[in-house]
Amino acid sequence: MIATAHIVDNSADTLIARFHSRRQYSLALAEPLTSEDMQLQSMPDASPTKWHLAHTTWFFEQFILLPFVEDYQSPQPQFNYLFNSYYEQKGERYPRAQRGMISRPGIEDVYAYRQQIDSAIEQLLTTNTSDELVSLIELGINHEMQHQELLLTDILHAFSLNPLYPAAFNTKSGITELSADHQSASEQFIRFDAGLHQFGVAPQTDFYFDCEGPKHKAYVSQFALAKGLVTNADWLLFIEAGGYQNPVLWLADGWAVAQQEGWQCPLYWRKQGDAWYQFTLNGLVPLALNAPVSHISYYEADAYAQWKGCRLPTEYEWELAAREQAISGNFSEKQIFSPMPCAEQGVMQLYGDVWEWTRSPYTPYPGYKAPEGAVGEYNGKFMSGQYVLRGGSCVTPIEQMRSTYRTFFYPHQRWQFMGLRLAKDC
Amino acid sequence: MIATAHIVDNSADTLIARFHSRRQYSLALAEPLTSEDMQLQSMPDASPTKWHLAHTTWFFEQFILLPFVEDYQSPQPQFNYLFNSYYEQKGERYPRAQRGMISRPGIEDVYAYRQQIDSAIEQLLTTNTSDELVSLIELGINHEMQHQELLLTDILHAFSLNPLYPAAFNTKSGITELSADHQSASEQFIRFDAGLHQFGVAPQTDFYFDCEGPKHKAYVSQFALAKGLVTNADWLLFIEAGGYQNPVLWLADGWAVAQQEGWQCPLYWRKQGDAWYQFTLNGLVPLALNAPVSHISYYEADAYAQWKGCRLPTEYEWELAAREQAISGNFSEKQIFSPMPCAEQGVMQLYGDVWEWTRSPYTPYPGYKAPEGAVGEYNGKFMSGQYVLRGGSCVTPIEQMRSTYRTFFYPHQRWQFMGLRLAKDC
Amino acid sequence: MIATAHIVDNSADTLIARFHSRRQYSLALAEPLTSEDMQLQSMPDASPTKWHLAHTTWFFEQFILLPFVEDYQSPQPQFNYLFNSYYEQKGERYPRAQRGMISRPGIEDVYAYRQQIDSAIEQLLTTNTSDELVSLIELGINHEMQHQELLLTDILHAFSLNPLYPAAFNTKSGITELSADHQSASEQFIRFDAGLHQFGVAPQTDFYFDCEGPKHKAYVSQFALAKGLVTNADWLLFIEAGGYQNPVLWLADGWAVAQQEGWQCPLYWRKQGDAWYQFTLNGLVPLALNAPVSHISYYEADAYAQWKGCRLPTEYEWELAAREQAISGNFSEKQIFSPMPCAEQGVMQLYGDVWEWTRSPYTPYPGYKAPEGAVGEYNGKFMSGQYVLRGGSCVTPIEQMRSTYRTFFYPHQRWQFMGLRLAKDC
Amino acid sequence: MIATAHIVDNSADTLIARFHSRRQYSLALAEPLTSEDMQLQSMPDASPTKWHLAHTTWFFEQFILLPFVEDYQSPQPQFNYLFNSYYEQKGERYPRAQRGMISRPGIEDVYAYRQQIDSAIEQLLTTNTSDELVSLIELGINHEMQHQELLLTDILHAFSLNPLYPAAFNTKSGITELSADHQSASEQFIRFDAGLHQFGVAPQTDFYFDCEGPKHKAYVSQFALAKGLVTNADWLLFIEAGGYQNPVLWLADGWAVAQQEGWQCPLYWRKQGDAWYQFTLNGLVPLALNAPVSHISYYEADAYAQWKGCRLPTEYEWELAAREQAISGNFSEKQIFSPMPCAEQGVMQLYGDVWEWTRSPYTPYPGYKAPEGAVGEYNGKFMSGQYVLRGGSCVTPIEQMRSTYRTFFYPHQRWQFMGLRLAKDC
Ligand SMILES: [Fe+3]
Ligand SMILES: [Fe+3]
Ligand SMILES: [Fe+3]
Ligand SMILES: [Fe+3]
Repeated sequence: MIATAHIVDNSADTLIARFHSRRQYSLALAEPLTSEDMQLQSMPDASPTKWHLAHTTWFFEQFILLPFVEDYQSPQPQFNYLFNSYYEQKGERYPRAQRGMISRPGIEDVYAYRQQIDSAIEQLLTTNTSDELVSLIELGINHEMQHQELLLTDILHAFSLNPLYPAAFNTKSGITELSADHQSASEQFIRFDAGLHQFGVAPQTDFYFDCEGPKHKAYVSQFALAKGLVTNADWLLFIEAGGYQNPVLWLADGWAVAQQEGWQCPLYWRKQGDAWYQFTLNGLVPLALNAPVSHISYYEADAYAQWKGCRLPTEYEWELAAREQAISGNFSEKQIFSPMPCAEQGVMQLYGDVWEWTRSPYTPYPGYKAPEGAVGEYNGKFMSGQYVLRGGSCVTPIEQMRSTYRTFFYPHQRWQFMGLRLAKDC
Repeated sequence: MIATAHIVDNSADTLIARFHSRRQYSLALAEPLTSEDMQLQSMPDASPTKWHLAHTTWFFEQFILLPFVEDYQSPQPQFNYLFNSYYEQKGERYPRAQRGMISRPGIEDVYAYRQQIDSAIEQLLTTNTSDELVSLIELGINHEMQHQELLLTDILHAFSLNPLYPAAFNTKSGITELSADHQSASEQFIRFDAGLHQFGVAPQTDFYFDCEGPKHKAYVSQFALAKGLVTNADWLLFIEAGGYQNPVLWLADGWAVAQQEGWQCPLYWRKQGDAWYQFTLNGLVPLALNAPVSHISYYEADAYAQWKGCRLPTEYEWELAAREQAISGNFSEKQIFSPMPCAEQGVMQLYGDVWEWTRSPYTPYPGYKAPEGAVGEYNGKFMSGQYVLRGGSCVTPIEQMRSTYRTFFYPHQRWQFMGLRLAKDC
Repeated sequence: MIATAHIVDNSADTLIARFHSRRQYSLALAEPLTSEDMQLQSMPDASPTKWHLAHTTWFFEQFILLPFVEDYQSPQPQFNYLFNSYYEQKGERYPRAQRGMISRPGIEDVYAYRQQIDSAIEQLLTTNTSDELVSLIELGINHEMQHQELLLTDILHAFSLNPLYPAAFNTKSGITELSADHQSASEQFIRFDAGLHQFGVAPQTDFYFDCEGPKHKAYVSQFALAKGLVTNADWLLFIEAGGYQNPVLWLADGWAVAQQEGWQCPLYWRKQGDAWYQFTLNGLVPLALNAPVSHISYYEADAYAQWKGCRLPTEYEWELAAREQAISGNFSEKQIFSPMPCAEQGVMQLYGDVWEWTRSPYTPYPGYKAPEGAVGEYNGKFMSGQYVLRGGSCVTPIEQMRSTYRTFFYPHQRWQFMGLRLAKDC
Repeated sequence: MIATAHIVDNSADTLIARFHSRRQYSLALAEPLTSEDMQLQSMPDASPTKWHLAHTTWFFEQFILLPFVEDYQSPQPQFNYLFNSYYEQKGERYPRAQRGMISRPGIEDVYAYRQQIDSAIEQLLTTNTSDELVSLIELGINHEMQHQELLLTDILHAFSLNPLYPAAFNTKSGITELSADHQSASEQFIRFDAGLHQFGVAPQTDFYFDCEGPKHKAYVSQFALAKGLVTNADWLLFIEAGGYQNPVLWLADGWAVAQQEGWQCPLYWRKQGDAWYQFTLNGLVPLALNAPVSHISYYEADAYAQWKGCRLPTEYEWELAAREQAISGNFSEKQIFSPMPCAEQGVMQLYGDVWEWTRSPYTPYPGYKAPEGAVGEYNGKFMSGQYVLRGGSCVTPIEQMRSTYRTFFYPHQRWQFMGLRLAKDC
């Protein structure tokens, strides 16, 4: 099994309620979008809203209804080809880069498909709450949460190509200008001792993804971690210091990409005259100087750290700092959908606001084995060329977050809410 | 002026009626499409339906309202950036390849824009029917017709990428199987004498595009032209004879493209088991053997002609044959939207069904000068690298057709309704 | 037959002498080059010197020895794969873009191969001077001349990538600075009457390539042709007038290429401080202001003509002006290898100095049929997408030149010695 | 300092002798090559032999003569531009992908340059043997060794594109066919206990590269390592089992590359009829079944391990096994230049034959800081996207090898002598 759920109350009713609530949240996020918005695919990395809504449904159908319902007949057999993302063991797939070409089924057809599958799942759960089934429901719910985040980052990217700067949402903005006595906490360091620690979650705990385990030991040298995230104001100083023009600060691969793509600032920054703006899910807004910088690549994060004579933390370092803290912060449910400033004691904003790039490549933990079957393709086959990010962002559902959660992206990617925190040896 | 209109009845009422009728036809063609369909851009050469509907409106606004209405204020000033196609003299443009990314304005906004502009045009025409204005209205109407054709060829291309084979229309199919005693007329030749002829239209005639003139003399050697178009049945023989595997038949550039793209048949043919089908605006249908072959590149047409020991006609040869004939045939108004078989006396199907590739590169006629101003960018700047096609197709409005009409495409392009007729020296 | 030779004195001795002399000239051109120079292939369009020397030899072997010598055994059977350029009917070929990867055979092996084949040809000619054989020898000699030109243009391109600016030759430079009272003749026009003319050479004349015939009639409208070629001084004015920044002057395809490639001046111009230099086969030299501009694309030539309110001549117009003139000028044998200024009566420099872009796409003349067999691939299969240039250049052997000679290149290509002459309607 | 040398005998004479001997070895490796061979650059990753000979010389000039010789005047100032590889702090560089375009300086000029610099180094060493200088000489010697390896792998790649299969060397082949009772040792595992170990070398040891340090602790779980390398015979079974056709075995990135590149076997395997051959520095030879497989990517190595239910070792695991062993094996000095079979006690062939892919991304060790100055660009800026390989190969100088040596390549690269050893958890 890819995941094991240790759910305190796994009565059918509770599970069905959680299932419907989580499924409903996807629809809520899509609610302000038009059918034309939901059709957009702005790059191969991103997918249309409509596709997300259909694919998460397909996931429940393929991984639960198909194996658990006897003689299961799909209401939409053709959808297996259209909405399989990357599971080789589930058969041929529609080319990823063309997902934006599927105008039919229309969004109404996809809503109907969701209802059909949701009803079937509910019916199944009234008769079967085996551990295996509950675990897979849990997996489907976590999968749905991941796509709820992608739905938002993907529509942000699509809208960013529209010169009319459409706003997907119109929620509280809450972002303030930089006060005169402002001091960034991004260079206030907190020290941690060296030690041999245990990492990776145990089988008896709550739900986790296979890549978060198994439990294993690792030695971590003494290090220091910054109290605060690097902010937009910090980043402006990097720009003004010529950070984007100085190859000596950059990894060789990063410099090559930066030159080829013409990077001069984070992905959604826009300069109009002398003023900086940022494109957000609330449209184009003045750059919030004291908010964490976001939408930067690993390469940019690493160059910034070089410039500061620091480095990025490893994922173990991050986890050591995070695992004692309560999980709260600026997550999706706050409906701000932009990183926000913060002022607290201790290491701040480990959770929420922005995913934090670590310097740890996404590799298997000692003893890791991908599960058997198609579900084994969920994580294992992506363990090359990517880096781990930790902590979740302002568009991540809070329920999904835990100190062991590893997300992963390529070092050139910028369309997620990605930021950084400095670390250093000491 | 790009064009001169010699309109018998250019009373305001008549012109307004023609204008509205032509504008209405664009909406009628889009009627069976959903807002998601109208969002699709399946390749840089093609445009979304919504874009066509907005761009043709922009054309009237920019080339007529802006110069003729005093202190003209656009209801949508941002649309100039979004819906300018390629007129450098009209300012910066949104990148062509990203037209499918514009979900907002939505289709309802575009419909509203059309109404606003149409009302303004109607109002203008009630007070001004100067020759210059009438000529520009005429140009706008002809421009609208060109995009009515593109709207259909572009949605056909987009739908062809959908494995569910959606049908845009459900009109009469009318296409029959090949009868046992069938004889293709594609190798029955009709001879024409050599002679010095006049080509190009005169300033005092009806509307024409600048590239159709000026009137000039050209000498045409003796030649023969096939009675019939090459049919799907003919093309099957080419495939079976290994035409797509034999480089000796092909132009060097054509062979290179064919290998790179993996061409093995016309663009929309699909083989299922042993049977050939064709994807059409009515969905996937069995291949109509006696219908003209369509959706082939210049390179394929040339290779076919080589295989037959023939050649493609020049545009002058085609025009000599066509200019004595009445203009009728399978055009857009028949609402078949697929090439059809035909049986007649003389050279058949010169008009309608499929555009016919000629071996004439699209070059300026002797004495040609592009008009002054942005309107001069309509045709002249495209006079390199393309070939002339003649006669119109099953998705061309018949009003647009005349014996001097030159359309032009790159030799590798296949998404228009393009076919061929053989010619030879004699 | 691709070509027919009407040679006055085709005695074996004379033919052998001509053959050896022409073959020897290739070696003479390569003489100043090192074995490393001769290895270079700087782009897929160009070939290494060593490859030219081997390929022209292969041509004699394949088209003459193989068919005419009984039981012919090649001394180097593997060379057919390596040195076939593009003849599909001669079998598989080594990939064109990798010609620079063939370090073995070394240049000494290629010299030995040349000697082997030359001896065999000489021996064959002592026993056989049939018309067919003589025609093919003539074809081989003309083929050798074409590659003598390419050998020079290709090494110039390769050397242009070397920041040390190597000089292949050290011959007289002869190029003067622009005098104070200088007047370009590029806008002095000479008028020609309209008329129906005969073009294309007859079968009973001297050697010609198949694409120069057959003889046919064409009507040419009244036109005017400039006395002089456009000079470097003229071109500087185009640059200073913002010619490279103004899309309105350019063909749409040309503007796209110019932006993508970042064109700001002719291919081999280099600016150092405020001064312009040109890289030549004699190294980097100050720009010769009164010499004809060279190494410009069709797109640039067309934009220049647009800027001047003129156009490029058609190939018929050029031929009408040229066919009364004696063939002399700055050709390869002068060993200057750079375009030179000129002052004469009448239309000047029609021959030599630079190939002149015409506005005529390279298409078959009426009645053209490619010859049977591999020799038919010499010209016919390239008749799409290219433009005709006329008149030869400073690296063309003069023997090759005639008023009907058509060379052809793609409109974006610049590495040949390509210039322009203005024309206009009148 | 990038490296520290603890050289027992660093008398001037001994150091000069070592210097000359190492420099001479480069010339010896190039000796069988022609000047044309030495010009070849077959892909951007590879460089011409001539470039390697010049660049290693440039390294001594820039990192030693320039800082240590007062008022140093380069005999070839232009070579800094031509032969700088990637040191941003040394100024602009000639584009890497065009190194094969530099025919001048010729090879004789490069030989002369080597002599000039070598004499200057010798002269400098007679007057200065400061620790800093000796360390840099040591660095230069190690750099020379790295390029001695690249010189061989790069010419092998270049020759592999020549259909005549040239042999660079003609040394003993020594490779036998697979005997009937053969048993591969690639699945005989030896177990290692878990433990907290120290890795990374200390400042007081012999020469090492910066990336090999600093000394640090890491915990290694219990594991097992295969006694033998995976052999060609083993790999044939992988091919026959459909390993190249089964996406389930592959990393997602690996499968994408394999499909795009059409991988069906290791880089230099060639099938002729039913028999497998391998292209080597001795030309095309029958595949040696009991020799280690070579020229496979990380992706292929990982897929093979998946197929076997195993995994690749980490670099720590490899190092634990290797650091107790004496350093001997099939290295460059044996002049075999191909991987060979082996039969020994214990874990075999940890050193020599083929570099062994580890599953460890090339990342900085805890506490790593790149040195100041241009020398700091040697390793640190490449620490993203690459994997560590360990142990050296049949073209690595033995002097270079040590248990802590980390080389690194991208997971898609195959042109080095790269093989694999299985590992597993236990
Ligand atoms: Fe998914
Ligand atoms: Fe238009
Ligand atoms: Fe040739
Ligand atoms: Fe180096």
